[in-house]
Amino acid sequence: MLKLYHHPMSAASRYVRLLLGEYAERCELIEERPWERRRAFLAMNPAATLPVMIEDDGPAIVGGIIAGEYLDETRGVFMRDKRLMPEKPAERAEVRRLTEWFVDKLDQEVTRYLVRERVFKLDMPKGEGGGAPDASAIRAARANFKHHFRYLGWLTENRDWLAGPRMSQADLAAAAVISILDYLGEVQWDDEPAAKDWYSRMKSRPSFRPLLTERVRGVPPVQHYADLDF
Amino acid sequence: MLKLYHHPMSAASRYVRLLLGEYAERCELIEERPWERRRAFLAMNPAATLPVMIEDDGPAIVGGIIAGEYLDETRGVFMRDKRLMPEKPAERAEVRRLTEWFVDKLDQEVTRYLVRERVFKLDMPKGEGGGAPDASAIRAARANFKHHFRYLGWLTENRDWLAGPRMSQADLAAAAVISILDYLGEVQWDDEPAAKDWYSRMKSRPSFRPLLTERVRGVPPVQHYADLDF
Repeated sequence: MLKLYHHPMSAASRYVRLLLGEYAERCELIEERPWERRRAFLAMNPAATLPVMIEDDGPAIVGGIIAGEYLDETRGVFMRDKRLMPEKPAERAEVRRLTEWFVDKLDQEVTRYLVRERVFKLDMPKGEGGGAPDASAIRAARANFKHHFRYLGWLTENRDWLAGPRMSQADLAAAAVISILDYLGEVQWDDEPAAKDWYSRMKSRPSFRPLLTERVRGVPPVQHYADLDF
Repeated sequence: MLKLYHHPMSAASRYVRLLLGEYAERCELIEERPWERRRAFLAMNPAATLPVMIEDDGPAIVGGIIAGEYLDETRGVFMRDKRLMPEKPAERAEVRRLTEWFVDKLDQEVTRYLVRERVFKLDMPKGEGGGAPDASAIRAARANFKHHFRYLGWLTENRDWLAGPRMSQADLAAAAVISILDYLGEVQWDDEPAAKDWYSRMKSRPSFRPLLTERVRGVPPVQHYADLDF
């Protein structure tokens, strides 16, 4: 049995949950609030980042990208056509580049700030960083997102799926982080019609359903969040 | 033939050069100064990060960790005992966690600042960020390094090699980033004797030689940099 320490507003956690959904794996979900720096959690992952996945009583598998590699090695390779990684090493490198782009780079330059300022601060005690949102951090994140959203638009205009002719881990990585930004109403879908069409395909997948019904306390999603036709 | 766009002060570039050395692969090295944002380079890697590896006329393989996966898939798997990745998925996850720790996290929290302030600024025109080093960035990076160096000490006290009983990509990742800090005289070796012993083993490997003889213009290394006995 798999266990996942996650948070609904962690892009890398959502990425792993989508992978698990695609591979039809059951998984116990444990919500972790990383800013609390719980001692037992730090013992599993001294970097204090999410997610952390554990299989049976095995060692901690730390981070979304690394959990994705693990799931590919232990599940994906047996999935034939449904494997979410291509066979050729150079094509795998492109899937990994885009997975890293969305789960790491976009997250670090955009999502992390918006989630911190608009969601986590509501839950954090004052001494641990809680309080009023920092408007300049929000502005900077929104400015950064424009470039990322244009890049997503370019990719979806020029390719069937983000990394090539078949859906891959890169699509789930991008959809994971975009779904958080969409929840928060940060995505101007009309600016990038090809990206909107791609996201509508992603959102319709059964693996997406649990994400679309989940709500964060005190932060309702934008009205169209769960609509497949938005 | 492999080609690597790199910089001598880029930890991820050094990591890939060590892997290439271990696998006895010849590779053409092209020095890239990422702050120049050369158009042809951005076309290969819109994130403008180093390294970028190309095999024959294939697509760009972007980033040290992803190049490491590619080299494992195309070289490592044929190396039997000399493969730098373990066979079991959970052990591979631990190698990947530490590789990411050193090449990404330590680099982002420490090396990147020190290299920018102490090396790159000497080469950068004023308008592009050149000028006097920012003392507070250097202080912050040094404070962060204390924690990382303690962690390296802990790992080397408790394990034969960083990720377990055999040398792996994680050792090369850590040695790559540490070698830059050592070049700059930032490592207080006497504080962590087990780490010193581990680094001395790493430094003695033939794959390390090209790094130890390389010099960055205007920035001489600390006196013991190339000594195997330091």
